[in-house]
Amino acid sequence: MNKKALLLLGCPEVPVQTSIALYLASRLKNAGMDVSVAGTDAALNLLKVSDLEGHYVDMEKMINLDKCIEALAEKRTDFDLCSVFVHNDAGISYLATMHEISNARLFAIIFGNDAESLSGQIDFNCDKIIAKTVHNPNPLMKKIDDKIREVKRWVVSN
Amino acid sequence: MNKKALLLLGCPEVPVQTSIALYLASRLKNAGMDVSVAGTDAALNLLKVSDLEGHYVDMEKMINLDKCIEALAEKRTDFDLCSVFVHNDAGISYLATMHEISNARLFAIIFGNDAESLSGQIDFNCDKIIAKTVHNPNPLMKKIDDKIREVKRWVVSN
Repeated sequence: MNKKALLLLGCPEVPVQTSIALYLASRLKNAGMDVSVAGTDAALNLLKVSDLEGHYVDMEKMINLDKCIEALAEKRTDFDLCSVFVHNDAGISYLATMHEISNARLFAIIFGNDAESLSGQIDFNCDKIIAKTVHNPNPLMKKIDDKIREVKRWVVSN
Repeated sequence: MNKKALLLLGCPEVPVQTSIALYLASRLKNAGMDVSVAGTDAALNLLKVSDLEGHYVDMEKMINLDKCIEALAEKRTDFDLCSVFVHNDAGISYLATMHEISNARLFAIIFGNDAESLSGQIDFNCDKIIAKTVHNPNPLMKKIDDKIREVKRWVVSN
């Protein structure tokens, strides 16, 4: 069975979020993972509108953020890898919540103007992918590419 | 020969821009048009990263904004339909420029917090698609759907 990946998206104030989520979903899918996305209504709507034909994220794999957290907290579901998108304090809270309720390997995708100070607030173990970027996806993309190479080895070896 | 559509994108400060651009490109392509996108580097990068496999916008149909305006001004190219994305004063300038240098039917996609006041600044004839939205693509999407129905009739009848 394929390994399961979750992308967790808060409110989409920062323009790179949706693009990087589509990129990461596409790369994880190509790495052989089964990809779901949990998000706020606005975050999921932007994904649906961007990917009208569902080439990068399957429509039926999009989950309401609160329902996803509830299902994880009640141990009705879990994932092998969870990537939390962080560009504000709410993102840090989601990350801490995932650290508590899930056994998934945890990636923090930290971006926006406050990327560095947000990163400094994280006092538990997780893989950080950090770029102080708002409009330009390239710095995050390159760091994600490095991480994907590692994920591919992990998927194959487990 | 297919009718030619251009999408013109300024800086992507407002999160809905990239998603709505992908949506509109996809809808115009499905309506039988040949779709190009001109934009700033950041706007085009976000499109490329979002649509990694080029399902919605062909990579070779992405053009640097300044080069596109130059080619239009020098009458080396033109389009049948041009949709200019407007969420700030620069967007209004691009729209006015297109009105001057192109014979394309002109759509103004006006969004963001200043949508109404921006719309009020337009003193020439063009089709306006207006929604005061920043994160939520739905209000724009519905108005675009109405316009697409009209475009399909126009594509068929010409």
